[in-house]
Amino acid sequence: MSYARRMLDSYPGALDVDAGLLATTIDALSDCFQACVADADADLREQHTADLIKCIRLCLDCADICSATVGITSRQTERDSNVTRLLLEACAADCKACADECELHAPYHAHCRVCLEACRRCEQACRQLLAANEIRGTDE
Amino acid sequence: MSYARRMLDSYPGALDVDAGLLATTIDALSDCFQACVADADADLREQHTADLIKCIRLCLDCADICSATVGITSRQTERDSNVTRLLLEACAADCKACADECELHAPYHAHCRVCLEACRRCEQACRQLLAANEIRGTDE
Amino acid sequence: MSYARRMLDSYPGALDVDAGLLATTIDALSDCFQACVADADADLREQHTADLIKCIRLCLDCADICSATVGITSRQTERDSNVTRLLLEACAADCKACADECELHAPYHAHCRVCLEACRRCEQACRQLLAANEIRGTDE
Amino acid sequence: MSYARRMLDSYPGALDVDAGLLATTIDALSDCFQACVADADADLREQHTADLIKCIRLCLDCADICSATVGITSRQTERDSNVTRLLLEACAADCKACADECELHAPYHAHCRVCLEACRRCEQACRQLLAANEIRGTDE
Repeated sequence: MSYARRMLDSYPGALDVDAGLLATTIDALSDCFQACVADADADLREQHTADLIKCIRLCLDCADICSATVGITSRQTERDSNVTRLLLEACAADCKACADECELHAPYHAHCRVCLEACRRCEQACRQLLAANEIRGTDE
Repeated sequence: MSYARRMLDSYPGALDVDAGLLATTIDALSDCFQACVADADADLREQHTADLIKCIRLCLDCADICSATVGITSRQTERDSNVTRLLLEACAADCKACADECELHAPYHAHCRVCLEACRRCEQACRQLLAANEIRGTDE
Repeated sequence: MSYARRMLDSYPGALDVDAGLLATTIDALSDCFQACVADADADLREQHTADLIKCIRLCLDCADICSATVGITSRQTERDSNVTRLLLEACAADCKACADECELHAPYHAHCRVCLEACRRCEQACRQLLAANEIRGTDE
Repeated sequence: MSYARRMLDSYPGALDVDAGLLATTIDALSDCFQACVADADADLREQHTADLIKCIRLCLDCADICSATVGITSRQTERDSNVTRLLLEACAADCKACADECELHAPYHAHCRVCLEACRRCEQACRQLLAANEIRGTDE
């Protein structure tokens, strides 16, 4: 069981988000944050960095947004549903943009294949959380 | 002239964002990031922290989103307009939520007054950048 | 196998850090970052928040440092060994401070027990990486 | 007067750090965080990115550490002096490493000149705060 899930299970208030769904999203966000940092770095180590500029930039953006979204989704107290929803939408769009770019380089670079997988999984997790419409404040 | 403005003026590519407008937004985001971290901390030092739980939570969210948005807006190379727009919308909504909460405590706490001002200014800057519709990729 | 490990295994340069040791550290840092954000939030939801102010503050610090350390340890290209070492030392000290504080509250709050475990594991991982003296630049 | 200074002046507890010195450091950290993000991005837009790989990497590290240090220095409540000191030392070392690298490129790239200045100023601010030995907990 991940730390994210264990922290949710020990939260002292009532959760009105499904703990499993939320923990899956938080874990996917943490993984995507790390993979994007690492992929931008691996791109810098390639011989033809010039072909990877867009990939680096989108990875850096994706790392920033995923990190912020780890923060927002890890807090259950007095959640602002509107803000959470908008951020999850921005995050899903960013993961998709980054994944689409990584896909172009996946045939040539193993690190882009791994990052692609982390981004698709994270996009999907964000969209499932949005679809469940379960992001509400704990104290509303 | 702020560092953000000086970095924009020395960017080696063509900017299709007004440098003044963009620098104002980046500066407002940096200030709001810092003010929100400091306000959450000042709330913890007050006697009646219990009344400030929502304020602390929204400040922590706002700090996370503003920090990520500093990153995204400070990069001009290969910008993804869609992602930038969605993030600016999430950031503006978060600044508004945080400002609205700080406003309730502003009569009693000077630090909430300062944070309120930083959040309102940041929300306005994000919305002006969105309205200018000037966030496009440099290489499109 | 974690994403951190898979990203290391697909890095295009030679690693002169043991991949297993480094991946363990990155995973521990990611977990500690998330657990500290979540524990500060859980503290805010408790009835006696006043007793938990120091815990909240140390969790917020620990989240910030762990997040930065995920970034620095996830990059293998042109590593600065001195900076990495100093940051790992600061991170280990912060994890210890946070763990020591969480330990005081662990008998009463399950979330502090989980966070304590994440902090101790992260401190240990940072110290093992430091002890291995294996953090060197890839291109030195 | 900066927001950092105004937040310090409205902090509800006693400060045992000189507010002017601390505000100068926080402002220098915020500027350095932004300048490093922007410089890494400007490097990516240059024709000869291959010559700038080390500069990009050190800028990304410096941005991460400065951002975390903004967080830690912006909190006055229950400060852990040891952690703060170690982080300021890591941050100063990182700013120096980044500045030294930017200096090599400063004759050719205006953005590296601006970033160099931001890093030197930040290193100096961190060292002055360390020298003042004024980072102590407010409630010790």
